[in-house]
Amino acid sequence: MLIAADTAVDVAEASGGRFGSDPMALFEDWAGFTSWADTIEPGSGSTYERSSLTCPVPAPGQIFAIGINYGDHGSEVAMEVPDDPMVFTKFPSAVAGPFDDIPLVPGNCDWEVELVVVIGRTARDIDLDDAAAHIAGFAVGQDLSERTCQLAGAYPQFSLAKSHANFAPIGPEIVTLDELDDPWDLEIRCDRNDTTEQLSRTSMLIHDVPSIITYLSSTCELRAGDLIFTGTPSGVGLGRVPPDYLVPGDVLTSTIEGVGAIVNRCI
Amino acid sequence: MLIAADTAVDVAEASGGRFGSDPMALFEDWAGFTSWADTIEPGSGSTYERSSLTCPVPAPGQIFAIGINYGDHGSEVAMEVPDDPMVFTKFPSAVAGPFDDIPLVPGNCDWEVELVVVIGRTARDIDLDDAAAHIAGFAVGQDLSERTCQLAGAYPQFSLAKSHANFAPIGPEIVTLDELDDPWDLEIRCDRNDTTEQLSRTSMLIHDVPSIITYLSSTCELRAGDLIFTGTPSGVGLGRVPPDYLVPGDVLTSTIEGVGAIVNRCI
Repeated sequence: MLIAADTAVDVAEASGGRFGSDPMALFEDWAGFTSWADTIEPGSGSTYERSSLTCPVPAPGQIFAIGINYGDHGSEVAMEVPDDPMVFTKFPSAVAGPFDDIPLVPGNCDWEVELVVVIGRTARDIDLDDAAAHIAGFAVGQDLSERTCQLAGAYPQFSLAKSHANFAPIGPEIVTLDELDDPWDLEIRCDRNDTTEQLSRTSMLIHDVPSIITYLSSTCELRAGDLIFTGTPSGVGLGRVPPDYLVPGDVLTSTIEGVGAIVNRCI
Repeated sequence: MLIAADTAVDVAEASGGRFGSDPMALFEDWAGFTSWADTIEPGSGSTYERSSLTCPVPAPGQIFAIGINYGDHGSEVAMEVPDDPMVFTKFPSAVAGPFDDIPLVPGNCDWEVELVVVIGRTARDIDLDDAAAHIAGFAVGQDLSERTCQLAGAYPQFSLAKSHANFAPIGPEIVTLDELDDPWDLEIRCDRNDTTEQLSRTSMLIHDVPSIITYLSSTCELRAGDLIFTGTPSGVGLGRVPPDYLVPGDVLTSTIEGVGAIVNRCI
C-alpha cells in the first residue's frame, strides 16, 4: 500500500504486477520502487481507514536498537552516556503493527517512543556523507520494555526484556526523507491516555542517525528492510519517583512530527 | 543437500520437487522434510567433498546467544555466572559457512566454540518436556568475538562485537538428535592450529538446551530456522595470562562429537 496525499494506492494493481503486495519484497528494489512511486499522482488512490494500516516492515532481517541516546534519558534512569552507541536488538518476533494491542507481561512494563530508521539499501562501511542515501524512510516505534528482566539480574537483559510479543509496534507507514522539511529535527512525543509523558526533538539524539548508520555498518552489513530503533528521550516510567508503569487499558499514542502517530492499547 | 551415510542426496531432485534447493525453505515444513528424509536409503547419494559444504542455515530469522554458560568459562574471564541465561544476539549478517575464512578486524579477536541449536518448529511458551521436539538439529558454531569493543566501553557490547563479517560460521551440516547416542553429553573442542585450546562436554552447560528453549520461548516466539548459540567452555584467549588472540593464518578447527567439525582460517 502506497500512501499518496491521504489516499491509498494498491501497489500490485497500480504497478501492473511489477511490485507485489508483500511489503518486504519492496526492499529488494527500494530505489526502483520509490522511482515508480514518484510517478503516482498524489490523491489518486482510494480513501482508507488509518487504523486499518498494518506493520510496514513485518519481517525485518535485523533490528538494531540504541540505548541511552538522549542525555536527559540517561540522567533520569541514572545510566552513563556511552561514548559509542550502545547496541542491542529487539528480536524480530516482537514486531507489531501501528495500531496493535500490547499484551502486558508480569513485571514492570514501560513506554519508550523512538524514531525508527528503515534501511533501504544493503551495504557495509557506509560513509557519514552517504548514510542518508541508505535510508528507506522513517517510522514511529515503541520500544516497550519490561524493566525487571531488563535490569534485575547480574547482566542487563536489554534484548530479551524488550522482545515480548508486540513490544515493537512500528508505523503507521514508512515516510521517505523527502517528505520531511528537516528530517534531523522532528518533535517526538509519547502520550499515555491524556497525559504527555515524553516530549523532545530528534535533534537531541547524542548519536544522530547518520552516525549510527556509519557506526553499525562498520561492523555489520546493513540490509534493506533492517530497522534501527534510535533511542528514547526522557519521560519513561522508570525515571519517576516512584516508578510508574503501564496498566491494562492504558493507551499509548506515539507521535513524530511529519512521520505520524501509532496508537497501542495495553491489554 | 541431505547427507546420508557419507553420501550427498540432491533434495530437489530426489524429492521430485516437493522440497527445493533453498535450505531456509525446508524449515517451513521441517517435520515433513525429515519424514521424507527417513525414506532415503543410507549411502544412496553421491560422493562429495566435505569442504564444499556451505552454510546449512544461511538466513536465520533470529539468532539467540547465551553468555557465561559454562562455569569454568565464567571463572577464566572473571564474570559472574548469572541465575538466568544471559541473552544477546549475533546479527544474522555475521553468519558464514563451515569452511569459510574469517577476516580478522582491528582489536583482539578471540575464539569460542559453541553448540548451535537449530529450531525446527515455531512456538512460544514451550514446556521443558516438549523442548527437544522443537529442535531441528545441532550444528557446530564459532562465536568469534572482538574483545576490545565487547568489553571496553561503559556498557558491554556483546551483540555488536560478535557480529563482524563471518564471525558466526556454522555447520558442517544440521545433525538431527536421533543421530546422536546422547545429544545432551557431547565432547566439544576447539583446536587452533595444532593446539587444543578448549575441551569440555555439553553436559557441563549451566543452562542446558531444553532450559534455554523454555526460557527464551517464554518471551520470544522461536521460529523454525532460528539459531541458538549456547555458550562456550573455558580456554578462550581472553582467559590467558597474558591474553592470547587470533592472528592471520591461524586455523580454527571446532568439533562436537557426533555433529562434526568446522574449519576456519583467519585472514
